[in-house]
Amino acid sequence: MTSFNFKFDLIAQDGDARAGVFHTPHGDIPTPIFAPVGTQATVKSLTQRHLKELDAKLILANTYHLYLRPGDELIAELGGLHQFMSWDGPILTDSGGYQVFSLSDMNAIDEDGVTFKSHIDGSTHRFTPERSVQIQENLGSDIIMAFDECAEPYDREYNERAMQRTHRWAERCQKAKTRGDQALFGIVQGGVFPDLRAASAEFISGLDFPGNAIGGLSVGETKDEMSAMIEVVNAILPAHKPRYLMGVGTPLDLVEGIRRGIDIFDCVLPTRLARHNAAMTDNGRMNMMNAQYATDERPISETCTCYTCQNYSRAYIRHLIQARELLSGTLLSIHNIHTLVNLTRNLRTAIIEGRFERFADDYLANLST
Amino acid sequence: MTSFNFKFDLIAQDGDARAGVFHTPHGDIPTPIFAPVGTQATVKSLTQRHLKELDAKLILANTYHLYLRPGDELIAELGGLHQFMSWDGPILTDSGGYQVFSLSDMNAIDEDGVTFKSHIDGSTHRFTPERSVQIQENLGSDIIMAFDECAEPYDREYNERAMQRTHRWAERCQKAKTRGDQALFGIVQGGVFPDLRAASAEFISGLDFPGNAIGGLSVGETKDEMSAMIEVVNAILPAHKPRYLMGVGTPLDLVEGIRRGIDIFDCVLPTRLARHNAAMTDNGRMNMMNAQYATDERPISETCTCYTCQNYSRAYIRHLIQARELLSGTLLSIHNIHTLVNLTRNLRTAIIEGRFERFADDYLANLST
Repeated sequence: MTSFNFKFDLIAQDGDARAGVFHTPHGDIPTPIFAPVGTQATVKSLTQRHLKELDAKLILANTYHLYLRPGDELIAELGGLHQFMSWDGPILTDSGGYQVFSLSDMNAIDEDGVTFKSHIDGSTHRFTPERSVQIQENLGSDIIMAFDECAEPYDREYNERAMQRTHRWAERCQKAKTRGDQALFGIVQGGVFPDLRAASAEFISGLDFPGNAIGGLSVGETKDEMSAMIEVVNAILPAHKPRYLMGVGTPLDLVEGIRRGIDIFDCVLPTRLARHNAAMTDNGRMNMMNAQYATDERPISETCTCYTCQNYSRAYIRHLIQARELLSGTLLSIHNIHTLVNLTRNLRTAIIEGRFERFADDYLANLST
Repeated sequence: MTSFNFKFDLIAQDGDARAGVFHTPHGDIPTPIFAPVGTQATVKSLTQRHLKELDAKLILANTYHLYLRPGDELIAELGGLHQFMSWDGPILTDSGGYQVFSLSDMNAIDEDGVTFKSHIDGSTHRFTPERSVQIQENLGSDIIMAFDECAEPYDREYNERAMQRTHRWAERCQKAKTRGDQALFGIVQGGVFPDLRAASAEFISGLDFPGNAIGGLSVGETKDEMSAMIEVVNAILPAHKPRYLMGVGTPLDLVEGIRRGIDIFDCVLPTRLARHNAAMTDNGRMNMMNAQYATDERPISETCTCYTCQNYSRAYIRHLIQARELLSGTLLSIHNIHTLVNLTRNLRTAIIEGRFERFADDYLANLST
């Protein structure tokens, strides 16, 4: 396998906020960036052309789901995930760790790995750090994640144990890796405990991954706790490597994360909210079912440049929802992803132009949460 | 309202097959043509850009559904159906007649009209010929249909009665019409009875509509009966007006209809089959759930130029179906509509080039039904 130089170029810094470019075999990722999630090798209800037009520069897929269905070996036979889902841009896969704890019918963890039952058919499977890397190598994503244990955020003893195991598993993932064209990112854990987070950031930094992630946030803790953990960790993680805040994606979280030096985000929120009839805008969420929209000729957002807002009215989208027409999910997904991609793009420009704080404060002042 | 000259230019004839152009306020419709159906002002799961790219030159919407939800008056307030659904090409609406008989919870017919209960909420409504025209005027479609009664095809007495009422209603629709920018088409009924069909074709021809339709076919009769009825009717309908075979849309039916002088078709089949995981091809249908496609890297059809076939494999589409991902419906709808639009386009070229019979016979020889 050819070796790729996963370079991260820092272009500008404004306070702790950073603008950069992360180079991958399937193209450059300008940071900060929001990555839409294609759990089962499809960003729900969107074609790859929708994603291209949304200027999505990175998408995420889930190792747990693709391992179970259609199977990572099948995807490898078919030329890898890029070929399989007809997406030629960068892809990030998670390790499956979070899903085996949150989705599977049961799971039993030991030092070596996790045994779990499929949420699809109840069959028994086992993930280890080595297996997770192997599966992600079969998938062929550009960025792969170390297998980690995500604990309840407030249980100190459990977090300490899980963090230490996550560290040992990170080393095993690093050793298990055979492909030179995939960047393996380490994951910092430690719940809501600053000392654990600091210790984890120190340890993971020491393994010299081409990028680092913060896991176990946005799982029930407060916004202040999340911000505090990001600050502790980012003060330690190396500045010349990208920092990925996993599973986070409200506009507020993006602004506050970027303010504290985060470069990469992913979240199912824009597509999930779309399926629940909610539009994300720079001024907050709109429930498109509301009767007030029945006669509203305006687009969701009058300043939005997305395909949905350029072509369809609130009244039409409400009609689609009322009539249970699937197109509502597609149109709202396009709009919601655009909102987050556009926000990170605007924040990036603001960083480069040295006006991040003003932009961020103005944005948050208009955002009703 | 401005008056529009709904001219039908016959460009070529090959046997009874015809190639033409029907001019409408929202653009020219090359015939023969297949019109995808957007029952609730959306061709299910497709954006209007998908439809443009599919080269759909005419789409159909259902008066019954749009009257009930969101309401024709609301659509009129919002600028009409074209504006509402963001489709600037020609639209045809049916009269609602077929749906009040087939979909509503009850219906009671009398000489003046039909009282029916909404399939949505059980509320009571009434359609008359005048009301149907008024609703279609509110919708603002380019082609509107006379309100008709569709009878069981084999009940002679009922068909005779329904046909005569359909004739009286056709005259009432003509009188009720106020807009000059919509073409009202008459509808020939008469079940499977050649003498009734002939009488109906004579009567409807005499009303000098800008176009004529054949209703009450593809509702349970045999293929031979359908072909026989088309022959009887088309021998009488004026050659210089377009002929629309309502609700018909298998590849076989398109070829046999065009062979007998039909110009316009519509059918829910391509989108309905898509939702049931079936691909329509020039060689017949494929059930994309089949296990044999799990590892099949080929597109649905190797000669197909549609977006789906240019980008996605059978294996990927099967995965989407297995994973219950909505994108499968979108991708199969694109492919299936392409198959029918492309077939009518190829048949049109064959007519113009004087090789219709050879093309049709070759096509049908390859089509496993």
